[in-house]
Amino acid sequence: MTVKQNDTTSTVDVLIIGAGPAGLMAANWLSRFPDITTRIIDKRNGNLENGQADGLNSRTLEIFESIGIYEMISKEASRMSEIAFWNPCPDTGRLTRTGCIPDTIPGLSRFQQAILHQNRIEKHLMDNTLLNSNGKLVVERGVSPETLKIDESLVDSQAAYPITLELKHLSDAESMPDESVTKVAGIKSGIFRSSLMSAEQEEALYKRDDDSRMEVVKAKMEGEQTNYVWGVLDMIPLTNFPDIRKRCAIHSAKSGSVMVIPQERNLVRLYIQLPQRVKQGEYLDRSKITADSILKTAQAVFFPYTLEASRIEWFTGYHIGQRLTSSFGKHRRVFLAGDACHTHSPKAGQGMNTSMQDTFNLGWKLAYVLRGVAKPELLDTYTGERQVVAKTLIEFDTKFSKLFSGKPRGRDGIEEEDTISLEEFHKVFATGNDSGMSIDYGDSQLVHKSKSTKQALAIKLPIGKRFFSAQVVNMASATSDQLATRIPTTGAFRLLVFPGNVAEPDLMLRLKTLAAYLDRPDTFLSKYTPRSSKGRDEIIDIVTIREYHSSPRGNLQLYDFPQPSIFLPHNYQKIFVDDESYHMGHGHAYDAYGIDKAVGAVVVVRPDQHVSLIVGLEDTDLLEDYFGGFMREAQDGGFPAELIPKMQPPAWETAPSEPDNNASVLRAQDIAVEKLVIA
Amino acid sequence: MTVKQNDTTSTVDVLIIGAGPAGLMAANWLSRFPDITTRIIDKRNGNLENGQADGLNSRTLEIFESIGIYEMISKEASRMSEIAFWNPCPDTGRLTRTGCIPDTIPGLSRFQQAILHQNRIEKHLMDNTLLNSNGKLVVERGVSPETLKIDESLVDSQAAYPITLELKHLSDAESMPDESVTKVAGIKSGIFRSSLMSAEQEEALYKRDDDSRMEVVKAKMEGEQTNYVWGVLDMIPLTNFPDIRKRCAIHSAKSGSVMVIPQERNLVRLYIQLPQRVKQGEYLDRSKITADSILKTAQAVFFPYTLEASRIEWFTGYHIGQRLTSSFGKHRRVFLAGDACHTHSPKAGQGMNTSMQDTFNLGWKLAYVLRGVAKPELLDTYTGERQVVAKTLIEFDTKFSKLFSGKPRGRDGIEEEDTISLEEFHKVFATGNDSGMSIDYGDSQLVHKSKSTKQALAIKLPIGKRFFSAQVVNMASATSDQLATRIPTTGAFRLLVFPGNVAEPDLMLRLKTLAAYLDRPDTFLSKYTPRSSKGRDEIIDIVTIREYHSSPRGNLQLYDFPQPSIFLPHNYQKIFVDDESYHMGHGHAYDAYGIDKAVGAVVVVRPDQHVSLIVGLEDTDLLEDYFGGFMREAQDGGFPAELIPKMQPPAWETAPSEPDNNASVLRAQDIAVEKLVIA
Repeated sequence: MTVKQNDTTSTVDVLIIGAGPAGLMAANWLSRFPDITTRIIDKRNGNLENGQADGLNSRTLEIFESIGIYEMISKEASRMSEIAFWNPCPDTGRLTRTGCIPDTIPGLSRFQQAILHQNRIEKHLMDNTLLNSNGKLVVERGVSPETLKIDESLVDSQAAYPITLELKHLSDAESMPDESVTKVAGIKSGIFRSSLMSAEQEEALYKRDDDSRMEVVKAKMEGEQTNYVWGVLDMIPLTNFPDIRKRCAIHSAKSGSVMVIPQERNLVRLYIQLPQRVKQGEYLDRSKITADSILKTAQAVFFPYTLEASRIEWFTGYHIGQRLTSSFGKHRRVFLAGDACHTHSPKAGQGMNTSMQDTFNLGWKLAYVLRGVAKPELLDTYTGERQVVAKTLIEFDTKFSKLFSGKPRGRDGIEEEDTISLEEFHKVFATGNDSGMSIDYGDSQLVHKSKSTKQALAIKLPIGKRFFSAQVVNMASATSDQLATRIPTTGAFRLLVFPGNVAEPDLMLRLKTLAAYLDRPDTFLSKYTPRSSKGRDEIIDIVTIREYHSSPRGNLQLYDFPQPSIFLPHNYQKIFVDDESYHMGHGHAYDAYGIDKAVGAVVVVRPDQHVSLIVGLEDTDLLEDYFGGFMREAQDGGFPAELIPKMQPPAWETAPSEPDNNASVLRAQDIAVEKLVIA
Repeated sequence: MTVKQNDTTSTVDVLIIGAGPAGLMAANWLSRFPDITTRIIDKRNGNLENGQADGLNSRTLEIFESIGIYEMISKEASRMSEIAFWNPCPDTGRLTRTGCIPDTIPGLSRFQQAILHQNRIEKHLMDNTLLNSNGKLVVERGVSPETLKIDESLVDSQAAYPITLELKHLSDAESMPDESVTKVAGIKSGIFRSSLMSAEQEEALYKRDDDSRMEVVKAKMEGEQTNYVWGVLDMIPLTNFPDIRKRCAIHSAKSGSVMVIPQERNLVRLYIQLPQRVKQGEYLDRSKITADSILKTAQAVFFPYTLEASRIEWFTGYHIGQRLTSSFGKHRRVFLAGDACHTHSPKAGQGMNTSMQDTFNLGWKLAYVLRGVAKPELLDTYTGERQVVAKTLIEFDTKFSKLFSGKPRGRDGIEEEDTISLEEFHKVFATGNDSGMSIDYGDSQLVHKSKSTKQALAIKLPIGKRFFSAQVVNMASATSDQLATRIPTTGAFRLLVFPGNVAEPDLMLRLKTLAAYLDRPDTFLSKYTPRSSKGRDEIIDIVTIREYHSSPRGNLQLYDFPQPSIFLPHNYQKIFVDDESYHMGHGHAYDAYGIDKAVGAVVVVRPDQHVSLIVGLEDTDLLEDYFGGFMREAQDGGFPAELIPKMQPPAWETAPSEPDNNASVLRAQDIAVEKLVIA
């Protein structure tokens, strides 16, 4: 891309416009590839300080673990465990707790949903991006794109820069609205950037130093907007409502609905149905929505429980509405993600998650194509995969919002218009409570569902869904590890080999046969990995999880495994054991993945953690076919196995005090292993 | 303390000399008390970059969790799970693995021992100290204490500054030895600050810009030094030795011993017994010890396994020796901690742990006395408690080092001088493998072991040992929490109340009777907490863990608990339930602590997490007696309960649609609770 600014012209491989969660996740991916030049700009001149999104579903937390920021975020976040439903008691009409469900369905993920303000998420994404890029990739703030031109005659040329973008460096006044808009009665307001204002109204808040006018260009989005208006308060409450530290859905008999979200730092977010209504296409007088008026409405819903605020940190309002773009990209050169292609109401807590997951899907594909490792067609899977996710979300949000805006059905059970039954509410709530786990990418060049795949070999690892972690034991160190933490986000495909118990010679032979194929200079691992890579595991990383029973774990040494494709010499993170650990019990990984120990499997996991292909150890043709579908042969001759010196076993013949050459004695240290557990 | 520097004179409450782990842990404590002025100085002008200590035992990791740095350290550290013993095979004489034990005895702690270089530990301690102190408390580097004077006539006056210290700001040349000493053949060397040099030799390495001479003052330390010399290498090895990622104790038949410590960033530390011997009182020619010569010695021990280094990051050498000061403090004004009062050999990995644990014991006591909350006599417990720990460590290290320096006993089992048997070795190893958990502070004003205490009420919580965490469920949020994370290091004593199942009226009555005592203005909680405190829980923080069975958890609301001593209004971290959680199983806290559910207990935990007192719910006289022993009455009248407005239950009489005043109907929301688990 060609970038013009201040009379200078430069080029960049990737320019990210907008440093919100979607933009930052894209930057985080690209920061891992030092050979790609990346910039990220944002027209606003400061980080968000308050408000905006706060919900983190389990899938996002898994991604955070994989990119290395989970620990810090989890330490700051408010965890949620229970959802309480409050409704008018059928007998008394009084607000009553009618049910509780766990907030994350037990067993879905190792992580439960949590709450942390968007500005902290952005901070940790930026810190990690800075670290990955050795301090190079930072957000350029107060920088606005003015014009964008695409030279369509160049879009298919890999070496060309077909896109020209003009950037403007904004002054402080240009890059932030006046405080009279961002702060109302001393309380920070988010209304200036909410759906209560039109794009034109919002842009009018930003001053322009020169005579130029800001051209408002928004991607065409289609969708519906209801006439319901909701308010949001981030506050420290003083209340006798018992469930103020739980996620609650409260429907009062006559005063509307509230959703309670317990946040970090003792804050609580309330989503409050407001009495205002707005007609289609119109916008509300924003002065009517104040923190005080929202709080008053909430108090009526909570009654007879009391609700006061010891502090209100932020407030905003929004229309309930859902909109979706018809396309997520153009010419495999320009891509939309996050709020730029799907907007909806915030109560389901899905917006920030979906936005980050959009670019977690996109980032590595951009890198693969830019580096020439994969064909440009790979990028088509971005729209194919994420548009379905966005559509499902929009549909869910429409239903979910309606449930919140409707009145609870009375005790007589008569179906009035706009009333909802408890059963219906619980059912829809549960559907949305999947924590991002139901996302299932369809059949494509990247996800082999119907053709050339053997789902039955790992029956509990659905192809298309995200790979989940099981605990394994590291063969070299005997530490118990969550497998996910050993195959973190690096940009590599993972080829997970489950060979069964290789202490049995026939199973070891199968593994050696597979390895011999992988070691060949003319097959996919060697062929698609550029010789210039940091290591032979940079593009396709092979990790073996052996099954273990009865025979001592110590019977085999690392150098007994085929090198370099299975045991990459001196790399102790390649071979794991499905075994009992000293401190964390047994992970039962084969059982967790539904892999038969006598049969084994090879599981291919994409760089963004989705299961792509499952085959048997003999199915090298299917592996070849899979990678051949979208990879490009390395131009530098690839990375043959012979480039890596093997680790040799000890020179036993020269060992001291050696009585004879009997092999069983040569391995004396192996049979002497015992676990002396001292209690 | 009066501080003179550059012709200016200032005062400071606490001056910490030396920003190593002991000094930084002291600073970390004091950073939590904004009303105490603290400075920390170090004569060296840069952080450590390499080498030095690296072992973290489980107790230290528990402390890190409590002060808030565990997550970051754990993410960087190398975990250890297994210790492998390698010895000459009795039959072949060849190096053989003779046994394996878990590196942290399972069940000792939630945390297993880990390895991370001292400079990273110091970084995280400093970052956290900076955060706690709002950016105020930073290490002043290149600052050296020149003279220290104590005015003994003033030491007992609380308001006086009896100590005068002169500080010198050093130039770069003065604060760091020349690179010819810190780097040998391109490899960073730690010998310039090792036990291979005398204090005088070490001081001579630092230039002085003026004519002044550095006076070498070391606290008198008594102890022994053997003639054994060891080398240390931090390296990335290339080896076929199978256990290079485990902690190993290797005894070769003829070439000496090696201990292997797997470090972070693929580094491995080797402790290598060197052929050199040094007579008592003499020092070695340091040029004889190079990274290369140490590696050569290690190679002989590993034979026939190969050992090369792809990189050596740091090396050093040391004499095996143990020394201990006779006193840890003077006049309750000057205190020694860490290396200043106990030095020994590094192989047991205890030095950095013990140093940090010294000041984790001391810091809060200093703060209590300086703030006038406790009597100065409290400080006497520092020496009383830590000197025993240091003595035990020194004794263990003497034995442990001897085992490593001795030759393995031959297969004939004849007890030659300087030979050791495998059994003996394993036994001593296991003793030292307690991971800091056996530390047991003796009977004192702070730890009531013999008098006025009822150990039998919580039989698995030994008085004097550290309080361990069990999982509980937060009553307000239903999240499962490790209790330790809910009672982190703040400086408060914790009064943990285990009242049993208070859904039973007689048990609730006992709790209310205890609360009524605590609420009184003339009893210890009100009396010893200054009215100026941030909250009534600042000095003595009461946390209740109720037992739960059969009756629904939701049957009781927070406002049903006595306020403010048991339920501090609007504070949702005061009441927990020993209950099944949605995602993490059941903590069985009462069982873990050995508390009878029908009897209950009150457990007092010191600010540094050691169990101090165990009594029954009726034993208010014993609690009064305990705190009366060392606390001082607040001069501002204390913090009576009446200062805190109570949370009132909802005004049910004004609730809408209310059919009658029947109390059982008033709580309709309570009996309707059900867990709708959706699978």
